[in-house]
Amino acid sequence: MTITPPALSVFETLESEVRSYCRGWPAVFDRAQGARLTDEDGHSYLDFFAGAGSLNYGHNNPVLKRALIDYIERDGITHGLDMATTAKRTFLESFQNNVLRPRDLPYKVMFPGPTGTNAVEAALKLARKVKGRESIVSFTNAFHGMSLGSLAVTGNAFKRAGAGIPLVHGTPMPFDNYLDGRVPDFLWFERLLEDQGSGLNKPAAVIVETVQGEGGINVARPEWLRALADLCHRRDMLLIVDDIQMGCGRTGSFFSFEEAGIVPDIVTLSKSISGYGLPMSLCLFNPELDIWGPGEHNGTFRGNNPAFVTAAAALDAYWADGQMEKQTLARGEQVEQALLSICDEHTALGARYRGRGLVWGVEFTDEARAAAICARAFELGLLVETSGPRSEVVKLLPPLIATPDELDEGLRTLARAVRDTV
Amino acid sequence: MTITPPALSVFETLESEVRSYCRGWPAVFDRAQGARLTDEDGHSYLDFFAGAGSLNYGHNNPVLKRALIDYIERDGITHGLDMATTAKRTFLESFQNNVLRPRDLPYKVMFPGPTGTNAVEAALKLARKVKGRESIVSFTNAFHGMSLGSLAVTGNAFKRAGAGIPLVHGTPMPFDNYLDGRVPDFLWFERLLEDQGSGLNKPAAVIVETVQGEGGINVARPEWLRALADLCHRRDMLLIVDDIQMGCGRTGSFFSFEEAGIVPDIVTLSKSISGYGLPMSLCLFNPELDIWGPGEHNGTFRGNNPAFVTAAAALDAYWADGQMEKQTLARGEQVEQALLSICDEHTALGARYRGRGLVWGVEFTDEARAAAICARAFELGLLVETSGPRSEVVKLLPPLIATPDELDEGLRTLARAVRDTV
Amino acid sequence: MTITPPALSVFETLESEVRSYCRGWPAVFDRAQGARLTDEDGHSYLDFFAGAGSLNYGHNNPVLKRALIDYIERDGITHGLDMATTAKRTFLESFQNNVLRPRDLPYKVMFPGPTGTNAVEAALKLARKVKGRESIVSFTNAFHGMSLGSLAVTGNAFKRAGAGIPLVHGTPMPFDNYLDGRVPDFLWFERLLEDQGSGLNKPAAVIVETVQGEGGINVARPEWLRALADLCHRRDMLLIVDDIQMGCGRTGSFFSFEEAGIVPDIVTLSKSISGYGLPMSLCLFNPELDIWGPGEHNGTFRGNNPAFVTAAAALDAYWADGQMEKQTLARGEQVEQALLSICDEHTALGARYRGRGLVWGVEFTDEARAAAICARAFELGLLVETSGPRSEVVKLLPPLIATPDELDEGLRTLARAVRDTV
Amino acid sequence: MTITPPALSVFETLESEVRSYCRGWPAVFDRAQGARLTDEDGHSYLDFFAGAGSLNYGHNNPVLKRALIDYIERDGITHGLDMATTAKRTFLESFQNNVLRPRDLPYKVMFPGPTGTNAVEAALKLARKVKGRESIVSFTNAFHGMSLGSLAVTGNAFKRAGAGIPLVHGTPMPFDNYLDGRVPDFLWFERLLEDQGSGLNKPAAVIVETVQGEGGINVARPEWLRALADLCHRRDMLLIVDDIQMGCGRTGSFFSFEEAGIVPDIVTLSKSISGYGLPMSLCLFNPELDIWGPGEHNGTFRGNNPAFVTAAAALDAYWADGQMEKQTLARGEQVEQALLSICDEHTALGARYRGRGLVWGVEFTDEARAAAICARAFELGLLVETSGPRSEVVKLLPPLIATPDELDEGLRTLARAVRDTV
Repeated sequence: MTITPPALSVFETLESEVRSYCRGWPAVFDRAQGARLTDEDGHSYLDFFAGAGSLNYGHNNPVLKRALIDYIERDGITHGLDMATTAKRTFLESFQNNVLRPRDLPYKVMFPGPTGTNAVEAALKLARKVKGRESIVSFTNAFHGMSLGSLAVTGNAFKRAGAGIPLVHGTPMPFDNYLDGRVPDFLWFERLLEDQGSGLNKPAAVIVETVQGEGGINVARPEWLRALADLCHRRDMLLIVDDIQMGCGRTGSFFSFEEAGIVPDIVTLSKSISGYGLPMSLCLFNPELDIWGPGEHNGTFRGNNPAFVTAAAALDAYWADGQMEKQTLARGEQVEQALLSICDEHTALGARYRGRGLVWGVEFTDEARAAAICARAFELGLLVETSGPRSEVVKLLPPLIATPDELDEGLRTLARAVRDTV
Repeated sequence: MTITPPALSVFETLESEVRSYCRGWPAVFDRAQGARLTDEDGHSYLDFFAGAGSLNYGHNNPVLKRALIDYIERDGITHGLDMATTAKRTFLESFQNNVLRPRDLPYKVMFPGPTGTNAVEAALKLARKVKGRESIVSFTNAFHGMSLGSLAVTGNAFKRAGAGIPLVHGTPMPFDNYLDGRVPDFLWFERLLEDQGSGLNKPAAVIVETVQGEGGINVARPEWLRALADLCHRRDMLLIVDDIQMGCGRTGSFFSFEEAGIVPDIVTLSKSISGYGLPMSLCLFNPELDIWGPGEHNGTFRGNNPAFVTAAAALDAYWADGQMEKQTLARGEQVEQALLSICDEHTALGARYRGRGLVWGVEFTDEARAAAICARAFELGLLVETSGPRSEVVKLLPPLIATPDELDEGLRTLARAVRDTV
Repeated sequence: MTITPPALSVFETLESEVRSYCRGWPAVFDRAQGARLTDEDGHSYLDFFAGAGSLNYGHNNPVLKRALIDYIERDGITHGLDMATTAKRTFLESFQNNVLRPRDLPYKVMFPGPTGTNAVEAALKLARKVKGRESIVSFTNAFHGMSLGSLAVTGNAFKRAGAGIPLVHGTPMPFDNYLDGRVPDFLWFERLLEDQGSGLNKPAAVIVETVQGEGGINVARPEWLRALADLCHRRDMLLIVDDIQMGCGRTGSFFSFEEAGIVPDIVTLSKSISGYGLPMSLCLFNPELDIWGPGEHNGTFRGNNPAFVTAAAALDAYWADGQMEKQTLARGEQVEQALLSICDEHTALGARYRGRGLVWGVEFTDEARAAAICARAFELGLLVETSGPRSEVVKLLPPLIATPDELDEGLRTLARAVRDTV
Repeated sequence: MTITPPALSVFETLESEVRSYCRGWPAVFDRAQGARLTDEDGHSYLDFFAGAGSLNYGHNNPVLKRALIDYIERDGITHGLDMATTAKRTFLESFQNNVLRPRDLPYKVMFPGPTGTNAVEAALKLARKVKGRESIVSFTNAFHGMSLGSLAVTGNAFKRAGAGIPLVHGTPMPFDNYLDGRVPDFLWFERLLEDQGSGLNKPAAVIVETVQGEGGINVARPEWLRALADLCHRRDMLLIVDDIQMGCGRTGSFFSFEEAGIVPDIVTLSKSISGYGLPMSLCLFNPELDIWGPGEHNGTFRGNNPAFVTAAAALDAYWADGQMEKQTLARGEQVEQALLSICDEHTALGARYRGRGLVWGVEFTDEARAAAICARAFELGLLVETSGPRSEVVKLLPPLIATPDELDEGLRTLARAVRDTV
């Protein structure tokens, strides 16, 4: 009998070796709705990754889909650079009415290009321009993007090495609880700032995620964030909150920093801001920082109007009142209960969980276990990914609109996957 | 009589001062089709800017629109990170069949994130990684993007200043004809390379546009490009052609470098690759350069599947044969004739034109004239923009699908706008 | 009566504003011998600064003076680049016999140029070349020199600002006791190194002073130095001890790191190595690091042969046995007793002292007091300088050959100066 | 018979592989007087290298020697930091009277540390501080020193590679005649400056040698230097002349730029400024640039008082009138005649010479010939060195005080060495 080896797919022959998710999830996905994807063989997958946080309202959310198709059907502007368009106006008004005004946030809105890294690049440029300094402080295990500006404030050594140049002008400081509580918060950072002999180039700004998603689901305490905001204020540094993954309701409130009661100088948003998974990002900042010259930062796709349409629809549908926030916090409790139970069952594995809202992580003593669990979960029809510098954490990012039943199903699958890897 | 000053629009009150195109074109655009946009007051504009080259097939091209709506209607994957999807496969196969194979190009395909600057960042990273050197040579008046890696190889002083840090690791060389033919091509560059005492850090790569769109419609001669490719080969530097604005048929052939008969080591594509103005970009490179580790460069929106759908539809509709190329070259001749006539009429203004395919520029002795002409053209219902380091060039980028009548109309409007500014 | 204002001196009219010591000590010095200088008006000053540590054997030490004059008289080579000379051979043999061999140190010897900063530049170059990494870790309040390579690892903000470019490739870590014992030694540093997501560019080397002279007489404990050496070894970083100010017997032993029992990979020496205050420096390193190409680092004055002559004479006279070390430790105890007494007398001023061998510092609660004390001491005929990031420490660096009586005299003068400023 | 291999010398066993001159001149030098050195075996060598230009007045010049010994004998201050001393005053007055005043030069004088690279580091710092810009323009084949600031504006690729970090903030421009007269002077440089899109970071300063000594004895024409000075003035860049090797009379006049009639903003001097080969350097600048804070640049050996003594003695002895300049120009003609004759004799070897004053170079078609000639010359008792990026030039730097007979002897030896290598 002759066995013909299967032909290599076009993904393997034509696409670069840089591809990654498709390796862990070896399926060809075709359709998706809400919390579920379907591959071309008809298998269904429950999605606890949600486009790395870009699909908070689920895949192809019907409310947004309707608005999107209507817009395309009527030949609304698709590509608008930074021209004024009706779709952009609708978005700006919705953002003002549903997001900024109720929270008393004074921000100006910049469309820096449709990706998160573009928003971070814009934020860093602006901070440096305003303060006239080059240095930026970031935190251990931060992730802010892959273009050179953002990468310089990103922690991951493998990704940094990809730069091909020494990444400078950034200095890492310990994120909350990085040193296991053995050191008072900001002791080192504050000392460096106050000491004229410390050797720290005075930073223009500090950039922080309130929950480090890529870095291992590290959750900053509200008091730590408040102390950081206070430090920035006292030491004349701008505070940039990168809310690309944790904003748009992931932690409950629209912005993840609301719980701490702080008002950053600059905020970046992307991922779920369009609501539909379409490329879009925003850079928000206090009006007095708006010293940009016209076109000083630009980008071909900063006027992705279909994304403005779905973004406005999402804000109107989900953020006109406090319902979404309440629901997310409730669902988060459901997740926490399930993780507690998993960890109780696996104390021998050193299982520990952490999270907030609908972003959670589970860590095990054996660092390789997280990958094994994700692989097993995939076989069982659940998409979950690892996170952390050694991929040692199982990361849960279900869509915010996942139903209690869907969450329950996914968490049970996870529990089984854990058991199966023991 | 009391006059109430008009209320400031949300664009003025909420959007950052960084906005630019909306200042020169003070209208709120609502719909668009083919070569025309319509504002909310019902005024129609003929578009000779085409989303800075992102709308080669026109606004809301009906063929692509149909494919897009069908895809959305059937809940095709919208956001796919770098997962394998049927839409991505369709695109890859179409790109291979319509673009790579007929041209005998061996490239691997990377989806580096959906914007041009992302593709450039990926190209530069890869070149540095492959060669183990930091330095990149770019050209005078180059434009490659606004994130820090791309900005460092971009010429414009105003945009560079926005970086807030010294932009290093890049060295500018004279673009074709930069010194008005007074110096042999590459005399200086080659001398720097051959001289061990020159002080030039040996470059990993050279990045070039075959026609500098933002830089003033500077057209490199095929022999200059060939000599550059030869120089790169002899001196062990990678050649990167940034075809973001000039690729996808803008100059006639699919890639703008085909005329010169060169095969760059790395090519970046974006703008019109999705065909519909949706964010998408590609980085192409010779297979032996594909030394990326999985996920070494990534990006949330690198799997913008609706863009894959319209991209495949555009390639199938326009690039299955040589028709598009022929048509563009013919339309280009039409444009050239009209510009010749304008320049003949205005020798007193020192009017000069240059271009290739459907990208053209007209320069006048008085540097301020270009802006005046564009402003007048807008009043007359034509969108054209300036280009060049002092905005001294009127830049024509009509959609490739503009009809001869539309071209004629636009060119007559342009001629009138020139006359009106005299 | 007409008063003629005194003419400005040539120092004030011709010399740059960058001059500094001459401002605090407004005298024109003419001659010097041992621990004393005499100004042109015949006033005598006891020198507790010793050329910032360059005159450990006193001014114009008669033993060295004799050797120097003999050498000059007989037309010995003065300027020798890096040619082999008899003077250089004599020095190398003396250094080997008196310094390296008795301590079982395997070092190769490099003459990197005659100043400390040149030695540091050479050390950093070599470390980067050997390890193929750019980053260097230095410590808070470090001082390593004023050329750009050394300045990047120096802490003082005022001096760093003089660079005129952002100083990068260096990262400060907390020196011993920097955080007042509230944090375990190297907790932060080690965590950054072990965490692949920390964002620290992996260092080629760590550069450290065992006692920070300019930084405020901060004395590293032997166990801290040992832990640092161990950390460097485990984490594949080279350990550079900058012994420019603390070497040549200042702390008792010839090298200041001997007490800790560590063997650094690279050591820099300068200041007192020539013994006579003549410009000279050395860079020592383990033989396996000696991957320099011929002339890869050079310098016009790296063969300052008169300095080799006095250096050899000093080593032969003072380091052929352990007498010098014992004497220095004994004199150090004498200084400590006196400082203890001063501090006991001025507990109300928060007076605290610290030091080792014959380098000591006294700090007061009021940061301005140190400068006042030094000014008063000058009036009383004693040269002492401040140190520390806010010039808050009175620094004592008497010549090692100062007699007990001279030390006593100086310490009594210091005690009086303290009292006079209360 | 047993042959015992000779023991390795301490130079071979203990000194670093970085040593270089001692390899080409395998002798152990012991004494020197005027233009001659003597090795320990009693062989005599005529010195046409003069300490790389540090011994313009010859070895151990008796006039300076007397002053030096007197100073040492009477216990004059040896090491003075930047304290005011009688020796420094004497030097400053002599420099003012003999150098600055007769040439109507308004410079302030800074003692930046005793080596050339220190002076260059200070000059670059000051230029950056004054202009608030980071970028410096240097020239192809420039040599300015080996510390990181100076190395970044040095051309030699081998030496640059030793840095271990990417050298940035410097951009090379073509030195005079670099492109063999095929390009108008400064065409490229001026175009880069005037074009807002060129990509050149606006330079704070331009640093230039009037004759490139290390770079291959490349002589800038006076009109080229004047055009450069004019360009700097028009384009708001400071002009730094690095006169470390070519100053102190090497080209005839005290400063090498006098012939061109220009007045640089900043001048660096070292090498022969002390006259006796002792480490010393100066940084001179226009008074309005003197914005240094006290101690903002410093250095332990910036007050090398024995060097001040010999420097003042040399200025008084040789620069009180125009005699030295006339003599150097006359001796230069003698050298030129001899080189003309050598080149005429060896047209088949493509021998070409160039130079000015008493700095000359001879180049041959075969790049390896220069090294062979120098090696042969050594055997014949003449010290000459190669220069140029490929060591392709025989470089002649005889002491200015060499007699016509000594010059004649050396030139005849050179002629013979050339012949012997054919």
